[in-house]
Amino acid sequence: MPVNLPPPVAELLLPVAGVSLGIAEANIKREKRKDLLVMQLSEGARVAGVFTKNRFCAAPVIVAREHLARGSGIRALLVNTGNANAGTGEQGMQDARNTCAALAGLLGCKPSQILPFSTGVIMEPLPVAKIAAGLPAAVANMRADNWSAAAQAIMTTDIVAKAISRQVTIDGVAVTITGIAKGSGMIHPNMATMLGYIATDAAIAQPLLQAMVSEAANRSFNCITVDGDTSTNDALMLIATGKAALAEIKTAESQAGKVLQATISEVAIYLAQAIVRDGEGATKFITVQVEGGNSEEECKQIGYAIARSPLVKTAFFASDPNLGRILAAIGYAGVADLDVAALKLYLDDVLVAENGGRAASYREEDGQRVMQQSDITIRVVLNRAAASATLWTCDFSYDYVKINASYRS
Amino acid sequence: MPVNLPPPVAELLLPVAGVSLGIAEANIKREKRKDLLVMQLSEGARVAGVFTKNRFCAAPVIVAREHLARGSGIRALLVNTGNANAGTGEQGMQDARNTCAALAGLLGCKPSQILPFSTGVIMEPLPVAKIAAGLPAAVANMRADNWSAAAQAIMTTDIVAKAISRQVTIDGVAVTITGIAKGSGMIHPNMATMLGYIATDAAIAQPLLQAMVSEAANRSFNCITVDGDTSTNDALMLIATGKAALAEIKTAESQAGKVLQATISEVAIYLAQAIVRDGEGATKFITVQVEGGNSEEECKQIGYAIARSPLVKTAFFASDPNLGRILAAIGYAGVADLDVAALKLYLDDVLVAENGGRAASYREEDGQRVMQQSDITIRVVLNRAAASATLWTCDFSYDYVKINASYRS
Repeated sequence: MPVNLPPPVAELLLPVAGVSLGIAEANIKREKRKDLLVMQLSEGARVAGVFTKNRFCAAPVIVAREHLARGSGIRALLVNTGNANAGTGEQGMQDARNTCAALAGLLGCKPSQILPFSTGVIMEPLPVAKIAAGLPAAVANMRADNWSAAAQAIMTTDIVAKAISRQVTIDGVAVTITGIAKGSGMIHPNMATMLGYIATDAAIAQPLLQAMVSEAANRSFNCITVDGDTSTNDALMLIATGKAALAEIKTAESQAGKVLQATISEVAIYLAQAIVRDGEGATKFITVQVEGGNSEEECKQIGYAIARSPLVKTAFFASDPNLGRILAAIGYAGVADLDVAALKLYLDDVLVAENGGRAASYREEDGQRVMQQSDITIRVVLNRAAASATLWTCDFSYDYVKINASYRS
Repeated sequence: MPVNLPPPVAELLLPVAGVSLGIAEANIKREKRKDLLVMQLSEGARVAGVFTKNRFCAAPVIVAREHLARGSGIRALLVNTGNANAGTGEQGMQDARNTCAALAGLLGCKPSQILPFSTGVIMEPLPVAKIAAGLPAAVANMRADNWSAAAQAIMTTDIVAKAISRQVTIDGVAVTITGIAKGSGMIHPNMATMLGYIATDAAIAQPLLQAMVSEAANRSFNCITVDGDTSTNDALMLIATGKAALAEIKTAESQAGKVLQATISEVAIYLAQAIVRDGEGATKFITVQVEGGNSEEECKQIGYAIARSPLVKTAFFASDPNLGRILAAIGYAGVADLDVAALKLYLDDVLVAENGGRAASYREEDGQRVMQQSDITIRVVLNRAAASATLWTCDFSYDYVKINASYRS
């Protein structure tokens, strides 16, 4: 079960003026399952996004990038689950384009004004006919207050839907930010296997919108790992409809820019952490905080060595303070000039190791007590300089193996 | 159970003139378990080795490196299981030195003529008194034909002992090479969590001996992964006693040098593969062969992305040809200019993917057939240039989680 992650309350998800959401059951992988989402945007809405860096990126990723590169004018986002349309070659590209054309026909826009997204099994042909057949129902039920159903429609191995809203007041005007995401396995930067959509009714200049989504991704989805596998299909989209009665925000340094960036990042961090809390088989949510490094990159390098180590993760699953495994992971992280005698390792507030070995004050029962918790922080203080990084991961359980051994069945 | 790895037959393990082996039960972690090995070397024997690159390397690794650096004159190797003496700071260094001193006292040599090795739990103090108390029994039962017991004495989570002998004729003289190794989890280069000892009665010049052990490690222990965790304690030692009636071998290019290198590498590869076959929870042995790359390094990079992917490994555990996961791993391996449309993926002889997607000729039942096997080759042909690399790994099962969740209990 997800770790300290209650399902979203539909009533707390705020509509974003200029965004309508329609869902459908298109029987893509299974019958009787919401597996299709259409997000229609009002004219003039702007969209920016970041995508997976996997070289085997999926056809919809390539097509969405293409359509975004043409500039503004995006009128809808189309998301299907049950099939990733990745590792599908030329046919996959054609299939992605065909789904855009089918939706464009229904909405009366150009195919290039649609952004396609797919998630699910890799290397299976996309069932375009099923998607096309499902689209009219999705378009027919489009509503502004449909975020909760939308969050459910994009789930794959997720146990709970992931969604959140925030409202901030900028220049006396209430601005809404609502986001949804999916993801549970094949989670690792750049990016995690996930789809994320965050919309605001603020008006944001296109270059700033791109900067804002990159910044939000770097502070959130690029700081999580479940299994170290970077997916073929990841995407985080930021939508600004400009429907709020507010002047266009043009710079990150403006007060409005700062407030909005902070709130968008907060929403992204909530969604990214929700993915880890709902990580496949997760029983514990682990924050890995590395401080005192020469650079953020070095801190992330050490943090990820810990966060993706199967030995560390199985020890947390067992609530066994076999914490030497964390030292081993720090040691092989690849920081060549690391002085292991200078660093300190904490589990929550318990000092575990210093001077290259177990701290004199450390008592097994203190480690044991922290290991019983469902939320745990591993803190590594490198004592080299002032850089830091925070990552989030989960433990590694029987259920991870079970879920992934039976994923296609 | 180990994958196609029968236990060694004691009678097939050939003594190496100049090496005596004694074992004991020192109760280091558990009672009634062989956990101590002493390998005594004849005067004039030479030793060379390679060690873990983990920055948190264990105290015995540091001490063994120090003693080796003093030149020749090594008279014994001392190996304990049950405790890694890693992450133990200054006390750990003193403990490692004290075990050397205790053995030196019994053998009548200097402590610096002893090489210490430890494997087991990290960040626990080494029980020096227990080791010192166990040493007399190990020394008392030293025998040349004790390789089988020695291979058992160094096991930790290993299910079967790993040992092999080869004999080659060089200039009309029979030369013996016998090797043992341990390792099962925390297995990843540089190096895998393992200890390996290979001895020959040939006389080999010290610089060549060092070159030979590096070459053998690069072709064997540096080509395997079980879980992607590089240990704190790895070591591979090559011993040349010079007891065979043969001139000293000085160059790798000589006929004798070539034959010996090939045989030593063969022994090392057998032992490395044995570690993977006995990988924690392994049910399948997987060879990952990457060909047609621009460099060996690039091929290894792609090979390791596949070999350490939990998603790939759980699919193999399930015998589920969910082979898109292999494409995803190739894609995130970090080869920035990889043309995914140019590569081909094979499962044994079955062409799975080409032109960026599933091969037209591929049938699920062919993939399914290969997935049922216990020995499987994943072959990736990059079609870039002529470099290649071969790695070995195993699948990821419930038992991996079980073994590592309960390792200390």
